Amino acid sequence: MKAIRDERRARLVLSRVGEPGDVRLTGLVAEIGAVTVLEELRKRHGAGDLASALASRLAAADPEADLDGAHRRGIRFLTPADDEWPDCLTDLGHAPPLHDRGGPPVGLWARGPLRLDEVSGSSVSIVGSRSATTYGTAVASEIAAGVAEDGRAIVSGAAFGIDQAAHRGALAVSGPTVAVLACGADRVYPSAHARLLGHLAEAGLVLSEAAPGCSPTRIRFLARNRLIAALSAGTVVVEAAVRSGALNTANWAAGLSRVLMGVPGPVTSAQSEGVHGLIRSRGGLLVTSPADVLEAVGAAGAALADRPTAPVTPRDRLTPLQRAVLDAVPKADPAPVSSVARVAGTDPARTAAALEVLHHGGLVERVSRRWRVAPDADHDERGPP
Amino acid sequence: MKAIRDERRARLVLSRVGEPGDVRLTGLVAEIGAVTVLEELRKRHGAGDLASALASRLAAADPEADLDGAHRRGIRFLTPADDEWPDCLTDLGHAPPLHDRGGPPVGLWARGPLRLDEVSGSSVSIVGSRSATTYGTAVASEIAAGVAEDGRAIVSGAAFGIDQAAHRGALAVSGPTVAVLACGADRVYPSAHARLLGHLAEAGLVLSEAAPGCSPTRIRFLARNRLIAALSAGTVVVEAAVRSGALNTANWAAGLSRVLMGVPGPVTSAQSEGVHGLIRSRGGLLVTSPADVLEAVGAAGAALADRPTAPVTPRDRLTPLQRAVLDAVPKADPAPVSSVARVAGTDPARTAAALEVLHHGGLVERVSRRWRVAPDADHDERGPP
Repeated sequence: MKAIRDERRARLVLSRVGEPGDVRLTGLVAEIGAVTVLEELRKRHGAGDLASALASRLAAADPEADLDGAHRRGIRFLTPADDEWPDCLTDLGHAPPLHDRGGPPVGLWARGPLRLDEVSGSSVSIVGSRSATTYGTAVASEIAAGVAEDGRAIVSGAAFGIDQAAHRGALAVSGPTVAVLACGADRVYPSAHARLLGHLAEAGLVLSEAAPGCSPTRIRFLARNRLIAALSAGTVVVEAAVRSGALNTANWAAGLSRVLMGVPGPVTSAQSEGVHGLIRSRGGLLVTSPADVLEAVGAAGAALADRPTAPVTPRDRLTPLQRAVLDAVPKADPAPVSSVARVAGTDPARTAAALEVLHHGGLVERVSRRWRVAPDADHDERGPP
Repeated sequence: MKAIRDERRARLVLSRVGEPGDVRLTGLVAEIGAVTVLEELRKRHGAGDLASALASRLAAADPEADLDGAHRRGIRFLTPADDEWPDCLTDLGHAPPLHDRGGPPVGLWARGPLRLDEVSGSSVSIVGSRSATTYGTAVASEIAAGVAEDGRAIVSGAAFGIDQAAHRGALAVSGPTVAVLACGADRVYPSAHARLLGHLAEAGLVLSEAAPGCSPTRIRFLARNRLIAALSAGTVVVEAAVRSGALNTANWAAGLSRVLMGVPGPVTSAQSEGVHGLIRSRGGLLVTSPADVLEAVGAAGAALADRPTAPVTPRDRLTPLQRAVLDAVPKADPAPVSSVARVAGTDPARTAAALEVLHHGGLVERVSRRWRVAPDADHDERGPP
């Protein structure tokens, strides 16, 4: 018990002093444990790259005060020793780093009623551009709502645009949703999302690898993106310009062997350019609906999306010969069987038999001994193609 | 020479009496020649499926008059014995039939100055919905223009919507373009396209497997679609609802091992649903521009599309440490090196060195002995992502 308490306390310190996803720290802690890493760092008195980088923060660290402060704000600290720690994060130990970020987090700060282990793994992350179009936000909300209705949590950031739309879609159906932040779980960024984040802290989950109070820096966004990808079965990129941060999350999803999905859009929209690139050359799966997403992330055969198909018309039940005869029947002036047969390229006997079937189906009508297309016969959507 | 003349004459008769792409006829003619097939059909006096189907047309056939009439309309008849006959059509002998249509055509009727063998093979077919959106027609024209400017011919039908837009795009850059019709090459269908077809007959090529005078039936559209696919290196589907005839052309392209491409669109557009299905589950390649199409149909490496990338900014040349320091520099109130170092998670010496580099690059400014972000430093589009 003491060993567990010590490890937890050491992770608390390292979570405060280290940068989220710093590969020099995350790999070492996963390998030899936080207690030993912390002892080594302290022993070196600032000698060595990592020790010198963290020296001033280490001197200021006060883990008990940190934890107290977090608890007062309704934030709990999670480590691998907690039941709530999700198994899926261990995959981060095997994925190659991106921008020097990588490895399983040393600890996580969580705020909200959802249990992380229960919502992650099967969840779907929905990410994309902050400067999304109305098309993008509408599709993000719709997909989030459909996926959340299936009982799967939505994972995203808390940015404007697609992130916001994804949470809103999930909240609209009272579904589980998780925001992973680049700043501390107590911070509100962007400030316009105070209500959204407050709502998530009450009904969903707000999560961060950065300790409370930390501000959102670019490098923390890059570290954060790996958690969004790792915590979900698949990542859907809804809109992304060629240089969107969402593509970093997509790279993490691919590196972690998660399902990478993209929602197409007009080729004339810069906000869809990055997504089209993912589908074209990164193996991203094109998805258009919640059903497509569920099919992609579900167990094989567990959720096969209904492919859109047109309704079956009376024409669908015709034989090729009957169809050829129907095509040969004039629409205006009625024609005799011999003429229909010649146009259809078949003989009069077969033509007459086919015309009877077509007549029975209401597709042609007889005018004295001649034939023409019935005035109310359904139009074939496919012909001429 | 007489043998060649006889074979040509027999194909002329069969082209008039047979239905385009009738597998009972095309396969046999390719195998044993038109002379033998015609003799057999005549010998049987209408006994047997094919012979009975064609009996009345055979009795009425007048190949010399047919050819005279065609020539008067500026239409030439092509058979495999002609230099103009394209090699790529032989692939049709190995592809499985669709809707009982298949096999190399017995003959082709051509109208216009382009030589079929010169424009086919390397050409790109662009097909899609008749009820296309303005988005779809704009993209079809743009792709057609870009591909035609590369010297490749555009192949399409002559329908409203995407077909029309594709020809217009090619004609706008005075590029080669070919319309393959389901009716005779002398007919105008739809009638509103009289000018378009007239223009193609003068500057491009109008092609049909159906003899002059034939009307466009559903089955002739299905047979026609296989020629569109076979005559080109790849087929681009621009817009197609789930039940569009363009998907039949796409199936032919796949069956003939041609490059199958699709232009994505909004997932909210029914006209893009069929295209998304091709990309999702038929192996269709997502294309967004002429460059994408040329890359896909070109010889490997011959035409690599310029991937859209954002311009390189001063930030791109920074090391990870320099970036972390830049992120830690406040935007408003200047901060001392020690404070920047703590926020960046590195030591003061490295921080000071990094600040010098950033200063040199114009990214930060010094205010007495403190630092802040330079007011005119370029904004990083990626952070926060």
